[in-house]
Amino acid sequence: MKLYGYWRSSAAYRLRIAFGIKGLAWEDAPVHLVKGEQRSDRFRAFSPIGLVPALELDNGAILTQSLAILDWLDRTHPQPPLLPDDPVRRAQVMAAGMAIAVDTHPIQNVGVVGHLKSAYGADQQGGIDWMIHWMARGFDAFQCMCRPDTPFAFGDTPGYADICLVPQLYNAHRWGMDLTPYGRLTGIEATCLTLPSFAAARPENQPDAE
Amino acid sequence: MKLYGYWRSSAAYRLRIAFGIKGLAWEDAPVHLVKGEQRSDRFRAFSPIGLVPALELDNGAILTQSLAILDWLDRTHPQPPLLPDDPVRRAQVMAAGMAIAVDTHPIQNVGVVGHLKSAYGADQQGGIDWMIHWMARGFDAFQCMCRPDTPFAFGDTPGYADICLVPQLYNAHRWGMDLTPYGRLTGIEATCLTLPSFAAARPENQPDAE
Repeated sequence: MKLYGYWRSSAAYRLRIAFGIKGLAWEDAPVHLVKGEQRSDRFRAFSPIGLVPALELDNGAILTQSLAILDWLDRTHPQPPLLPDDPVRRAQVMAAGMAIAVDTHPIQNVGVVGHLKSAYGADQQGGIDWMIHWMARGFDAFQCMCRPDTPFAFGDTPGYADICLVPQLYNAHRWGMDLTPYGRLTGIEATCLTLPSFAAARPENQPDAE
Repeated sequence: MKLYGYWRSSAAYRLRIAFGIKGLAWEDAPVHLVKGEQRSDRFRAFSPIGLVPALELDNGAILTQSLAILDWLDRTHPQPPLLPDDPVRRAQVMAAGMAIAVDTHPIQNVGVVGHLKSAYGADQQGGIDWMIHWMARGFDAFQCMCRPDTPFAFGDTPGYADICLVPQLYNAHRWGMDLTPYGRLTGIEATCLTLPSFAAARPENQPDAE
């Protein structure tokens, strides 16, 4: 399978982690977001919304939306599971991940911040303030939703919520956010990054990293 | 079960539709978003991120995030299913729904537009332009992703993608968006709204509608 992504994309980073947890190999097909390749007709044929990632399966089928791809992944490669089996616990773990992947990351994505600058006059610092504002809301929520004292967000093994959290923390570090109030989250991050699945997925370890 | 929602909330509207499709009854617990009740300590004890909906189950468990609640619902009440069983088709239908529910709705939510106004000086028209800009991106993508000629977005019965689409179109109508380019989507909407499950879920039919 071929992953159309970008080294710094949070959503592509999620999938690289998940593939690592599942022990799956993939081929990288970098899409250069800063050069605007995601808006090309060629890429939009895969991903009509013009966002990475897209995943091309070996039979030619195309999947988009990282959370939908995680659903496909857990159904087709169930071990180790990314979510608990109990429907209530499963929905609660998923909700913590979505506090980041639905209610934080899309608002502070590169295209949104670019529009804030070009159409609403925000300068570079205004863009950074916007990102940090929404990350704070998401991190506050995640810190209330996760378990207080487990190695990973919800237990002894990494899963859906950790997969959503760690790439968002990469963004937070990148933009200089003060993470002092989020000791629980940086603790989870440190534990995750000791694992080969997370370490290999880090942006700086990708072939298109600059 | 008790639904903490708001008549005009897209995410609560999704759940009302889904409960209707599944034939489930629920108790309404309105949270007045314009008065800021979602930011109260009482509501944040349910939903740390301060967003509706939250769902209180009969055993007292609390679920948040409408898409995670749809996952719980389809596992605990599988008939009729909201998603296809085949993992690839399932992920593709889910992705169309997420083009709206992940990459459109959170960016143009009331809190985000409020912050755009209070911290970035956007006026009322600037807020409306922002919402319509992101809705256009999402609707363009959805129209490419759905099937071209079925009664509902992906077949002869309504499901996950329709549940995400119809509440977003309510927002589009509300803010005066020109929907001429989206004839396929307004066609799906018209078909959906003939069904009792969708009609009963409409914002104007809720007890807290003003």
